[in-house]
Amino acid sequence: MSTAVAPKGLEGIVATSSSICWIDGEAGVLSYRGIDIHELAQRSSFEETTYLLWYGKLPTAAELALFSQQLAEARTLDPKVVDFLHSVPTTATPMEVLRTAVSLLSIYDADEADSSHDANLRKSFRLTAQIAMIVALYDRIRKGKPVVEADKSLSHAANFLWMLNGEKPSETATRALDIALILHADHELNASTFAARVIAATLADIHSAITGAIGALKGPLHGGANEATMRLLFAIEKAGADPVEYVKQMFADKKKISGFGHRVYHTEDPRATHLRRMSEELGKAAGNTKWFDLSRKIELFVKQEKKLNANVDFYSASTYTTLGIDIDLFTPIFAVSRISGWAAHVIEQHDDNRLIRPRADYQGPAYPADYVPLNER
Amino acid sequence: MSTAVAPKGLEGIVATSSSICWIDGEAGVLSYRGIDIHELAQRSSFEETTYLLWYGKLPTAAELALFSQQLAEARTLDPKVVDFLHSVPTTATPMEVLRTAVSLLSIYDADEADSSHDANLRKSFRLTAQIAMIVALYDRIRKGKPVVEADKSLSHAANFLWMLNGEKPSETATRALDIALILHADHELNASTFAARVIAATLADIHSAITGAIGALKGPLHGGANEATMRLLFAIEKAGADPVEYVKQMFADKKKISGFGHRVYHTEDPRATHLRRMSEELGKAAGNTKWFDLSRKIELFVKQEKKLNANVDFYSASTYTTLGIDIDLFTPIFAVSRISGWAAHVIEQHDDNRLIRPRADYQGPAYPADYVPLNER
Repeated sequence: MSTAVAPKGLEGIVATSSSICWIDGEAGVLSYRGIDIHELAQRSSFEETTYLLWYGKLPTAAELALFSQQLAEARTLDPKVVDFLHSVPTTATPMEVLRTAVSLLSIYDADEADSSHDANLRKSFRLTAQIAMIVALYDRIRKGKPVVEADKSLSHAANFLWMLNGEKPSETATRALDIALILHADHELNASTFAARVIAATLADIHSAITGAIGALKGPLHGGANEATMRLLFAIEKAGADPVEYVKQMFADKKKISGFGHRVYHTEDPRATHLRRMSEELGKAAGNTKWFDLSRKIELFVKQEKKLNANVDFYSASTYTTLGIDIDLFTPIFAVSRISGWAAHVIEQHDDNRLIRPRADYQGPAYPADYVPLNER
Repeated sequence: MSTAVAPKGLEGIVATSSSICWIDGEAGVLSYRGIDIHELAQRSSFEETTYLLWYGKLPTAAELALFSQQLAEARTLDPKVVDFLHSVPTTATPMEVLRTAVSLLSIYDADEADSSHDANLRKSFRLTAQIAMIVALYDRIRKGKPVVEADKSLSHAANFLWMLNGEKPSETATRALDIALILHADHELNASTFAARVIAATLADIHSAITGAIGALKGPLHGGANEATMRLLFAIEKAGADPVEYVKQMFADKKKISGFGHRVYHTEDPRATHLRRMSEELGKAAGNTKWFDLSRKIELFVKQEKKLNANVDFYSASTYTTLGIDIDLFTPIFAVSRISGWAAHVIEQHDDNRLIRPRADYQGPAYPADYVPLNER
């Protein structure tokens, strides 16, 4: 069989066709179903964007109302899943708990064995609603706080903040999170989405695919970058250091600054534009622009010194911290958003499937190597 | 950025280099670290083969003794994981239970946050030992049978049969399973292994990668084929039909016969050779060659009619059934074996990593599509 050797990490290799997300890395364009991310960030909601990703078009007012209702109605966790969240040690990381809980969801899902288009959609509603609930619930449980019941009258973003904080969120906070959820909802064949498609392409069920995607997102090269950015901001503040001097020293020490550059974008990451604005607006609303100011100084210096642009992770760090969200929830919140894109990709994969099974370039001992008997080794 | 469009399913695309497994699909060769699978199936053990996969060489007698002891010592499940197996409804499928339990293992693993080479090896021992235990334990629990404690004096294959059946297995049965475990231990970039590497390439931990791999294996296009083969054998027996006539009718009805053909092999799957022999030997030892005889008639007819060769799945069906193993444990047992290869690939990926992030060929609505306001839709 003829084989073709792809660049390491499959960089630049088109692994599948898809009608979900279009990125132009040279021009700095991100679009869902052809609609520019700037339009969606300014004018859409997470519910509407998820509808767009799943159904390939913007909903009518009636369709959006029904969709939002179905998503809210799915805010019911099986008590066994809540028991599980109470059963784990409070030292368990939110991502391993989320990965396990999502795997557990399939056991209590009546559609588990059905991977038809319609069943996949039904499961996508439940996964989207319940991933947000699991993240919020476990955070309260591990902190010894009472669990907050879902409020089905709230939007997806508002309900998440309500279940996380136990108080009704402000309009500003809700809108900030809603925009963050829109911006992170899909990004073509990023590693977690690609993992989901590889799993789904065996015709495994959507819970298997999403569990694998959460595992991939857990990796520091994928979901972990905004955590690293925030740890840097905390370290600079703790040291009482000048941010430019601090970063200059990091460069001198050959250290990497998280939150800059992107495999795909060669311009500014179009999502960074909105997260920068949100970071500033939230800071002003809270009367504390400390994290925004620090971030901005670093951004300008890195851009000037290294010609590197801030990516989606850089300003999500200060945005989430200003929203009062713990650092180890940044990646889980990424999952709260990305489930909408993951689901769209799994549905698309199942609708026109082919097993994803590449080859390896063998570099090991020459064949046939001797099987030397045990007593002669 | 320049992109290259790969064939659908990445067929024939070399996605990474690897020194673990070499396959020659034209010549029908499978080898681990350069050693032919026929040598290993006839002369090695699962423990020795796993050592070979993980360390890249055959062990000395002392190394093999230590390795086997370490693997046996890892036969201790956290009580919380056993509690979990008791907590799920007995209708839960073994694969979703295994996927969830393996994800849960990380929460109780002291090395969870450490993905160094040495920590990955330590976790690989535990995963390999404990995946077998989980499969056996859950099968007994769901059948209302008392749990059997691990016997650390037994080999990996013998302990699995002991924990599954509650009686010490015969030499023949142990050797048959041992060979099946050797044959399934690795197969280059099959879909589950590729999923594991995509996940690991974000520098996610090995539990995330293996959980995703189990999800991929769960798909009927991957792990499910021998189940389908066995359902066919059962259906033919139940109908009291002539196997050749039955299969002839299936071909006339354009139905697919599971267990034939392979994406990679264009000859006989070299693993089928050994599973055919084992199926026959086990049948003779049990005084019942019914499943072997039926399988053989089908194999010869399909080969003659369609020029298709039996693959690894075809004779594993009759082999496992003759061993008294339930049909829905076939795929879990595949995982009991493949964990050794998955672990080798995750370790190799982490040792020389690059994020696996291909591109998609966008086929959706043209950019920029209008964001039509809600009240104008």
